[in-house]
Amino acid sequence: MGGGGRLAAELIEEVFLAGYGNELLNRLDDAAEVEFGPARLAFTTDAFTVKPLFFPGGDIGRLAVCGTSNDLSVKGARPRHLSAAFIIEEGFLLDELRRIVGSMRASATEAGVEIVAGDTKVVRRGEADGIFIVTAGVGELIEGMDISCGAARPGDAIIVSGAVGCHGASILNAREKLGFTPAIVSDVAPVRGIVEALEPAAAAVHAMRDPTRGGLASALNEIAAASGVSVRIFEDRVPVAPGVRACCGVLGLDPLYMACEGRAVIVADPARAGEILRLVAKTPGGRGAALIGEVTGRRLEPGLPPVAVETGIGTKRFLPLLDGEPIPRIC
Amino acid sequence: MGGGGRLAAELIEEVFLAGYGNELLNRLDDAAEVEFGPARLAFTTDAFTVKPLFFPGGDIGRLAVCGTSNDLSVKGARPRHLSAAFIIEEGFLLDELRRIVGSMRASATEAGVEIVAGDTKVVRRGEADGIFIVTAGVGELIEGMDISCGAARPGDAIIVSGAVGCHGASILNAREKLGFTPAIVSDVAPVRGIVEALEPAAAAVHAMRDPTRGGLASALNEIAAASGVSVRIFEDRVPVAPGVRACCGVLGLDPLYMACEGRAVIVADPARAGEILRLVAKTPGGRGAALIGEVTGRRLEPGLPPVAVETGIGTKRFLPLLDGEPIPRIC
Repeated sequence: MGGGGRLAAELIEEVFLAGYGNELLNRLDDAAEVEFGPARLAFTTDAFTVKPLFFPGGDIGRLAVCGTSNDLSVKGARPRHLSAAFIIEEGFLLDELRRIVGSMRASATEAGVEIVAGDTKVVRRGEADGIFIVTAGVGELIEGMDISCGAARPGDAIIVSGAVGCHGASILNAREKLGFTPAIVSDVAPVRGIVEALEPAAAAVHAMRDPTRGGLASALNEIAAASGVSVRIFEDRVPVAPGVRACCGVLGLDPLYMACEGRAVIVADPARAGEILRLVAKTPGGRGAALIGEVTGRRLEPGLPPVAVETGIGTKRFLPLLDGEPIPRIC
Repeated sequence: MGGGGRLAAELIEEVFLAGYGNELLNRLDDAAEVEFGPARLAFTTDAFTVKPLFFPGGDIGRLAVCGTSNDLSVKGARPRHLSAAFIIEEGFLLDELRRIVGSMRASATEAGVEIVAGDTKVVRRGEADGIFIVTAGVGELIEGMDISCGAARPGDAIIVSGAVGCHGASILNAREKLGFTPAIVSDVAPVRGIVEALEPAAAAVHAMRDPTRGGLASALNEIAAASGVSVRIFEDRVPVAPGVRACCGVLGLDPLYMACEGRAVIVADPARAGEILRLVAKTPGGRGAALIGEVTGRRLEPGLPPVAVETGIGTKRFLPLLDGEPIPRIC
């Protein structure tokens, strides 16, 4: 489910869950678990409306492949097959479409998935903005990994697989022509390698999430809400790239709310946190991994946000779920 | 894959198959067959941009549920789980969204599927036209049914499960305010019951397709092209509702090219055509089923369209794949 803001959360809750809520959808995981005989699968979808279509480090096609396969990965599944549906505005350049499709193919190879089904609809000029892509994906749940957004336990360690906010800052810098140089490069990438590296420690991993819309802060809020726990992170342990920090500083934005598209937040047994950190750091996408905080306990105060951050000088502030999206069309 | 026109077919072939073609995608079936251990699944997706959103007999939500579950059904699968992604224009009425979601729930119940994953993206005013919905679906292939668009054989009988063109004519009548009364009612409905009724004759069913964009003529062209065969149908055996005939007559359109959203084209062993027709006609959605033609042989003349129709007075005309879509935003 696409979270990332309180309005989105309310929309989902009020309209969609009330409309056709069921046990699987109610869990609000990144992917639904479905069974076909002995086969245990994960199934998910995401819509991509990013603007601009091409940005440093990626494009809408790479995003559409990585976004959906990452949702399968953080559910503890091996991504296998994707579908891709295109809604294209009349007059959209065929050369750009070719470039996007080429990028999807390369990203699919990198993510170890195959695009096996597709659809294309063309609408008139002014009825869409260039191109929108919706991907869905199926994967095979990894034996022994039992991961759900609602399975974080008091005492658990919180690990992030790399620097946060790169994707969001990259889009903002490109779209608003902020002029930060060198260009801020999106982190969009498959997290499959990171998740599969955790297999030896599978039983110790309780919850995972890829912090896309609304960034790390929103992902932690979603985990905390689904698990009924509170969370504390330490600001100076959260890796943030210098360009992202500079961009956010100038605009008064918090990097903790900026989208990532190639990171995983891992909530795990604290006794095995060191081992997990080492496993993640050995993967190409996980070199910047860091232990950033902990699950502090069952949620006690219903009036207060469940996620707090402690600064280097010992002050504490809450990281509430934001009203609405901080940045539209980020993915 | 969304066919329905020669431009669409060329776009698919040139950009998508060249871009990330693989064996499954190359088969151009309504759904891809994927295996997870012993489980044999079908997987598909479709984008829905229909205008108007509400029309006699249905709405975009019902279409999105039936369209994707029908693609699974005509692949010989039992539809099981759907995902639904929404791209919504800012300012879209929440009441309309509720109505659409309610319709999706009712249609899902009717089709025997569960909507288990979703995503929502909101874009600014003018960046989309109201709402677009993309569904994807997974289903379980029915034991003993081995159906592919490319499996039609010379001599096979061609059956259609009911009157053709109702959906296309309904949209046209509603959108262009043509004023045909009583309103032409779309046939949008799950074809699951029809396909599952064929189980006793499963081995005799070679190819199936739901004739959506581009109607019966395009579905037959796709089957003929994929199977390398020629096809002949008899115009006076093809059921067409009087309202559809009147609407098409006034506009100079051919009902054979008008979209259906609740029909199945069945290509089957001629020795069992009578049995299959009876099985289909016993289902609620298949009462108007008819034997409309036959596969005449291996395709011999590469220059001629592979599908022909014979009129009641014995003349013959070809039904070529059209250039571009006859009607935009029909589904």
